[in-house]
Amino acid sequence: MEKVYQYIDEHQEEYIELLKSFCNQPSISSQNVGMREMADLVKETLESLDADVEEIKTSGYPIIYGEINQNKNRTILFYNHYDVQPVEPLEEWNTEPFKATIKDGKLYARGSADNKGSMLSRICAVDAYKKVYGELPINIKFLIEGEEEVGSPHLKELIEKHPDKIQADGLVWEGGSKNVGGPLQVALGVKGMCYVELHAKGANNDLHSQYAAIVPNPAWRLVWALNTLKNEKDEILIEGFYDSVKPPTSEDMKFLENMEYDEEKMLESRGINSFINNLTGTKLKEKFLYEPTCNICGIESGYTGEGGKTVLPSSAKVKIDFRLVYNQTPEEVLKLLRNHLDKHGFSDIEVVYLSGKHPYRTDPDSLLAKTVIQNVERVYNMPPVIYRNLGGTTSMYDICQTTNIPAVMFGVGDDNSQIHAPNENVNIKDYIDGIKFTATVIHEYANIK
Amino acid sequence: MEKVYQYIDEHQEEYIELLKSFCNQPSISSQNVGMREMADLVKETLESLDADVEEIKTSGYPIIYGEINQNKNRTILFYNHYDVQPVEPLEEWNTEPFKATIKDGKLYARGSADNKGSMLSRICAVDAYKKVYGELPINIKFLIEGEEEVGSPHLKELIEKHPDKIQADGLVWEGGSKNVGGPLQVALGVKGMCYVELHAKGANNDLHSQYAAIVPNPAWRLVWALNTLKNEKDEILIEGFYDSVKPPTSEDMKFLENMEYDEEKMLESRGINSFINNLTGTKLKEKFLYEPTCNICGIESGYTGEGGKTVLPSSAKVKIDFRLVYNQTPEEVLKLLRNHLDKHGFSDIEVVYLSGKHPYRTDPDSLLAKTVIQNVERVYNMPPVIYRNLGGTTSMYDICQTTNIPAVMFGVGDDNSQIHAPNENVNIKDYIDGIKFTATVIHEYANIK
Repeated sequence: MEKVYQYIDEHQEEYIELLKSFCNQPSISSQNVGMREMADLVKETLESLDADVEEIKTSGYPIIYGEINQNKNRTILFYNHYDVQPVEPLEEWNTEPFKATIKDGKLYARGSADNKGSMLSRICAVDAYKKVYGELPINIKFLIEGEEEVGSPHLKELIEKHPDKIQADGLVWEGGSKNVGGPLQVALGVKGMCYVELHAKGANNDLHSQYAAIVPNPAWRLVWALNTLKNEKDEILIEGFYDSVKPPTSEDMKFLENMEYDEEKMLESRGINSFINNLTGTKLKEKFLYEPTCNICGIESGYTGEGGKTVLPSSAKVKIDFRLVYNQTPEEVLKLLRNHLDKHGFSDIEVVYLSGKHPYRTDPDSLLAKTVIQNVERVYNMPPVIYRNLGGTTSMYDICQTTNIPAVMFGVGDDNSQIHAPNENVNIKDYIDGIKFTATVIHEYANIK
Repeated sequence: MEKVYQYIDEHQEEYIELLKSFCNQPSISSQNVGMREMADLVKETLESLDADVEEIKTSGYPIIYGEINQNKNRTILFYNHYDVQPVEPLEEWNTEPFKATIKDGKLYARGSADNKGSMLSRICAVDAYKKVYGELPINIKFLIEGEEEVGSPHLKELIEKHPDKIQADGLVWEGGSKNVGGPLQVALGVKGMCYVELHAKGANNDLHSQYAAIVPNPAWRLVWALNTLKNEKDEILIEGFYDSVKPPTSEDMKFLENMEYDEEKMLESRGINSFINNLTGTKLKEKFLYEPTCNICGIESGYTGEGGKTVLPSSAKVKIDFRLVYNQTPEEVLKLLRNHLDKHGFSDIEVVYLSGKHPYRTDPDSLLAKTVIQNVERVYNMPPVIYRNLGGTTSMYDICQTTNIPAVMFGVGDDNSQIHAPNENVNIKDYIDGIKFTATVIHEYANIK
């Protein structure tokens, strides 16, 4: 691999220029800004690798699919996305969001970390490897969509219509980050989600609050119903909710114990005194990654303006996201929730299902996971921090459910990359290391047993 | 009194024209529309009664005070207000809100029922009585403020600075109504109020909801705290909350039993299936008038827009109005609430006091109450429906607390008067009957024992 590393070092200006050109092209999916031009740029770039490139139309933005079939035994699928988040609030940016600017070893631009930097680390790794060795030791598939930042509404459709496109032996997910000055994070799974609204109804109009003595108040109905869902110890009280949760194995616990988590920094930066139940150490990390949540994202009823309007509200609404852990499913949680509300006398409360994702977990002993974990130190000079799964949610299950392949996440960001926020940035060194590391994974995955 | 009734009948066109002129003058206190002109009109009208009129300045709109001192043994204080509610939404009015329009025996205009009609029924009664008898049998005081619709912020100041102005033997409150085709409502008291906000705080910013597993959620804190305040049977659980509540006496219960309340109509018009705890009959009326409330007026936290944003909110807020019954006080409730939250582990939740009013109740055997109750049938041809107290709240206590005088409410509206709403109206006959009835009260109060 030394030749490949040397090639990457010698051509780093070229790779940086490529990242700049990607960042300089706006591609805001939620605002339909620059999407066509960005899709074309991705296509051209994949074509320059001599990949077989296909634009797959959807009723939204197209998916760019590229394949380099070298008739090898193993295939890696790289999932990435070419769309970015909006840039507002503009006044908080120190540089122009779509004019990549390098300062103190960092490249600032919207999309630099999420996900153009990580996407190009895959593409440039393939380029460098091919330039040095002439051919790849494995087959590569690129699946690069344009709607990740708006919830990937057409990904399932693609998977159903083109099951061949996702056939692979392992999946490398789109993003990830490094702790500053610290280890690369490698994640082997994600939590799922069940997102619902609960609606309570009272009278047909808001009433003068004198009637609160005799007319039911939907805000109170909601409070009482919510109170049956979770107690002050943060235990979710829905009957059967934890039944399909697979508790961490002793191996999982070893990952947790070795996982770095800076509690003091988190507490201080968030302005809180303690975590839930005053948890610290392994118990805290275990709750973060291995326990499902029942979170009020928003609640609204009645008069919420300034001062004191005396009103009996006619309706009340709450938004709840359940983050699900292996092996829960959104369908199951939705059913348990409805049963629970009915059983506790809240059949009047309507449950509206907004969206769901299954959790997904990869066996740490799978060949792809092993390849990634065993080789981090070669590039980063220290072992990785391994997240058995993340606290967040992605569409990983949607891609992996039929093939049941291992999925691994790593990327070029760090914990100061400001993704989705003003002044998004990536360390130039992390970007170049990301190219080297991906090339290493391609190389080693060919022969691992 | 027949002569007075005859005089009123003969001059009803004049009294209707006066009401029209009052209604044609806008006087929206919350928008500062027409307030000066309206105050002048009230002054002129009181002066035309040969009252000693004084304009009492406040840092808001002036209070118009008028006194007709005839050196009699007894004095009635009429409390009224010359301001009105805003007229929005304009498009729902069938006539111009400030152009009084008579149709099918009703006069339509903003303020026609609340409170210009009732105010003029007092003024015209004095006028007619004086025109017929030359002098009044009692002394009269008029206290007419311009800020009732914005919470009477300067009334307490007036009472403190000018205690002489509210010295009287009885108080007739500003408004009231008749059931359609039914009896006149006479109310002998009001509920009090304690209006608070509860604030819960979490992290210093909204967070990605993956952190819900470990970072406290203020919306949940609020739900759990609220749940300790009231149970599903609508019982308020704050320790000591009911201690100073004076339960209804057997006499009070007789008033309740005789009090007309159209349950079916209320249920149907509000689109609800049943009242709280499926109450009906006397139990329902007892809860409505004799029990305090703890009502969520509004609640807000996190993301409340369309669709599913996955956020862990940083703050949560609820507005609560407690309607208080005799002999509770807002100060006491505020203290009990704070103690309760502390005792139940919610010392992190801030209580913000917004406003308070004491309840007030008048002895039904007081001379003024007796005068009113005994004479309703002479004008309205049927006995009144007596509300021992209303479910709503006014500043009655503020005026009566030092003098401890009886206070009685009756007025010229009906249950279709649309006060505070588009198409506010008053029945012409109810307005004229209101003049006659007020004149009767003035006459009979002079001699009752």
